[in-house]
Amino acid sequence: MEQKVLDPTVQKALVQFKALDEKITHFSSVIGLVDWDQKVMAPKKGRSVFAKATGTLRTEVFKLSVSQEMGNLLAVLTSRENVGALDEVSKAKIREYQAYYQKSKSIPADLFQEYSILTAQANDAWEEARANNDFARFLPYLEKIIDFKRKFAEIYGYEEHPYDALLDEFEPGLTVKKLDPLFAKLRESSVNLLDRIQQAGKRTPDEIFNQSFEIEKQKEFNRFILPIIGFDMEAGRLDETVHPFAQSVNTGDVRLTTRYLENNVRSAMFGTIHEAGHGIYEQHVNPEFEESVLQSGASFGIHESQSRFLENMVGRSKEFWHYFYPHLKKYFPKQLENVEVDEFYRAVNTIKPSFIRVEADELTYNLHIMIRYEIEKGLMAGEFEAKDLPAIWNQKMQDYLGITPSSDTEGVLQDVHWSFGGIGYFPSYSLGNLYAAQILRTIQKDIPDFYKIIANGRFDLIQAWLKEKIHQYGKLYTPNELIVKVTGEELNAEYLVQYLEKKYSEVYGL
Amino acid sequence: MEQKVLDPTVQKALVQFKALDEKITHFSSVIGLVDWDQKVMAPKKGRSVFAKATGTLRTEVFKLSVSQEMGNLLAVLTSRENVGALDEVSKAKIREYQAYYQKSKSIPADLFQEYSILTAQANDAWEEARANNDFARFLPYLEKIIDFKRKFAEIYGYEEHPYDALLDEFEPGLTVKKLDPLFAKLRESSVNLLDRIQQAGKRTPDEIFNQSFEIEKQKEFNRFILPIIGFDMEAGRLDETVHPFAQSVNTGDVRLTTRYLENNVRSAMFGTIHEAGHGIYEQHVNPEFEESVLQSGASFGIHESQSRFLENMVGRSKEFWHYFYPHLKKYFPKQLENVEVDEFYRAVNTIKPSFIRVEADELTYNLHIMIRYEIEKGLMAGEFEAKDLPAIWNQKMQDYLGITPSSDTEGVLQDVHWSFGGIGYFPSYSLGNLYAAQILRTIQKDIPDFYKIIANGRFDLIQAWLKEKIHQYGKLYTPNELIVKVTGEELNAEYLVQYLEKKYSEVYGL
Repeated sequence: MEQKVLDPTVQKALVQFKALDEKITHFSSVIGLVDWDQKVMAPKKGRSVFAKATGTLRTEVFKLSVSQEMGNLLAVLTSRENVGALDEVSKAKIREYQAYYQKSKSIPADLFQEYSILTAQANDAWEEARANNDFARFLPYLEKIIDFKRKFAEIYGYEEHPYDALLDEFEPGLTVKKLDPLFAKLRESSVNLLDRIQQAGKRTPDEIFNQSFEIEKQKEFNRFILPIIGFDMEAGRLDETVHPFAQSVNTGDVRLTTRYLENNVRSAMFGTIHEAGHGIYEQHVNPEFEESVLQSGASFGIHESQSRFLENMVGRSKEFWHYFYPHLKKYFPKQLENVEVDEFYRAVNTIKPSFIRVEADELTYNLHIMIRYEIEKGLMAGEFEAKDLPAIWNQKMQDYLGITPSSDTEGVLQDVHWSFGGIGYFPSYSLGNLYAAQILRTIQKDIPDFYKIIANGRFDLIQAWLKEKIHQYGKLYTPNELIVKVTGEELNAEYLVQYLEKKYSEVYGL
Repeated sequence: MEQKVLDPTVQKALVQFKALDEKITHFSSVIGLVDWDQKVMAPKKGRSVFAKATGTLRTEVFKLSVSQEMGNLLAVLTSRENVGALDEVSKAKIREYQAYYQKSKSIPADLFQEYSILTAQANDAWEEARANNDFARFLPYLEKIIDFKRKFAEIYGYEEHPYDALLDEFEPGLTVKKLDPLFAKLRESSVNLLDRIQQAGKRTPDEIFNQSFEIEKQKEFNRFILPIIGFDMEAGRLDETVHPFAQSVNTGDVRLTTRYLENNVRSAMFGTIHEAGHGIYEQHVNPEFEESVLQSGASFGIHESQSRFLENMVGRSKEFWHYFYPHLKKYFPKQLENVEVDEFYRAVNTIKPSFIRVEADELTYNLHIMIRYEIEKGLMAGEFEAKDLPAIWNQKMQDYLGITPSSDTEGVLQDVHWSFGGIGYFPSYSLGNLYAAQILRTIQKDIPDFYKIIANGRFDLIQAWLKEKIHQYGKLYTPNELIVKVTGEELNAEYLVQYLEKKYSEVYGL
């Protein structure tokens, strides 16, 4: 086998690049840990001062990422004559920094600073607006954020649609041109399926959940299932927050949070399984990628595919509950006394249009995303302005879900994302569902007994497959490369459409 | 009033210096938080990789502190013609960085690196040595550490004794010449008092503590007392660790830990009060000093004075228990059923020579420190070598405490300090006791009802005095300036000698 011999200049640049990557990643790990701390552990009086300390760290990461040193190293390492000699891992690292550098180096420092201050203020304004159902309070900030995003899109550059420049931040390579047909197909079939479910008039026994479930028992059950479904408790934690999330520090330290509600036992249960999907992904990344930019999941969409896969395809399957329901009954014998497992299964798969995205079921969830996608796309194209959003929001809710919010608090003001400038983020959630269904199809080919092994509680076999095919690679591949490598084709909405059709036809006896 | 007008060069240097100070302090706050996290929260599998991330942050702080930029700024700001024009706060900040810069700039980077690796390895070796009672396992590391410390002392420079160069790291301005007479006086009187106590043959009823105290109840009691004695729970936390400590992130975020032992109720109780003394100090620092090097306590010795003052002078006083004992009885009605408050008071003030420093009583504690002080001083002077320590240790234990350890594990190997190179640290503990007794004398002049207000639970009045006289200043003053400002004189061992004599004459009826 011929060994590639690197030019000494390239060799030297590679060593310097790796040291810079390691430094940036060390800083990022620390930022991840302290972000978790401030949400989960920090006493409230110290948070505002500490935010300035983390601001200093974030600025340092930004400066290193767009530094002259980084620019020079990337220039050497991406030059046509050198790139062929590089190994796959180095190329992937260079790709990640190159993308960020190309975008961010053109943002003038004072514009970035102004934008950072704006989003900090906008978040406070949004919180007040939501609490008081007062869209006007948030509007001036939203308008400025949209102005910034339009400016950034021009600076970042795009080929067809200005929204592409933002989508690419969350899902590298994603464009409106790719997303439109995927989402159109999913939207049409979802609206149609929802219509048929509602026409059928059949109900699931979800009144099971109109009972009180002791929080201490819920905690015990959540801690009981986590290691069984594959989360390594010696390489992670489970804590409580108002908004559940997963935060990876490194592959040996992944932290999940969940939320316990006495009158809603589903919230913590599926919240924990969902975050475990994110967390197991991070625990399974190849340890050789640690201390490098490759140490995390491939993209927001691929990440979401892993949480959705575990939450819905696995965690809301009949077989999952055939395995876990006898255990659950031990924790809640009184509440579940007269409830059979198949009733319970149907109850956790209730389809019901509702106003709040984070509480939506597996089918209508994607319709909530479509609404946000269409709004963001229209805003970026200049088809309408921020002030028009409440009316557009309510109209789309009526069109897709058949219900109209009675307030902006349960409508256009419900999500935090726009207040921190996260335009382009929402599609990741539905991409996750699309990826997940496509991965489900593939795993069922490799493991024909897929649902049988779930019924037997052999989640280790499923996790081993996910680790081998997806998790271990971290950011080595782009999301598109990865899905093709795993499933043999690019993202195809057909799999999710068929999955939903099949599952809910059975649940609702269509 | 005449306004000092600063030269534009000085003005500019001051602005740059403040920005650099803020950046270093931001990094240090983050390091403090993640150190706490790794001891208290982090899952074990992620810690070794994360240690490299914090290593990167620590290196950054070191680099910034000895940078060319720092050197240039300090040169401008400490020059004879400029220094007079500076305000008190700026001068204090400059003093702190100047001291570190002068010492550390002369340490060659590779020597520092070599030393860092050595202490990391030495810590592992010490842990093994202590676990297996195997001094020989630790000896080669200890020898190298002592060689390094002797080298560093020469590089740092000193006027009379090489140990002075190390003492100064923990207690700025402290020397063997100052410490010798203080410690000699304290040692003589302590040995003498201990002898009289043992001669008297009178016992305290400390068998009270040979009972099981439910850990959940201990936790509740600890959380009950913390806010009453002055710790702000909205600006801090209380958690559990094997080795209790206090960690300040900023004045609004101070974290304490304690250790609960079912068969030793005193451990958590006095541990919590002790750490609260450190924590309240940090919570009380002037918020204007936040995000600067002045945001912490004046020195290790002054810090220890605040923890000892609260633990011993306040927390082991008769009046403290007259206030808290009825509450404690509610938590442990069975265990304390037939125990009167004055018996309990005498029991928590039991004097009994023992092998382990951290478990020692208020009187013999200082004798443990003397042993370490004399050993460190002799090592630095080259009077003996590391291999001689077990024999010297055991001889001194016999001389001062009248007991000989049966193993090195409960002798020379018990403390972690030497393994991380903390030679010069131990005297701070006894300095803390000396400062505390001198401060006690002063507060009793200002508040003649001192013990009466303790009996009434008005800890707020005591904390207000400590805040006004000591805590608010952070590092504004050197330890010597501060003790003179507060008490009107330099550190004087007489106050601790008298305090111990008076208290234990009463407890033991001498």
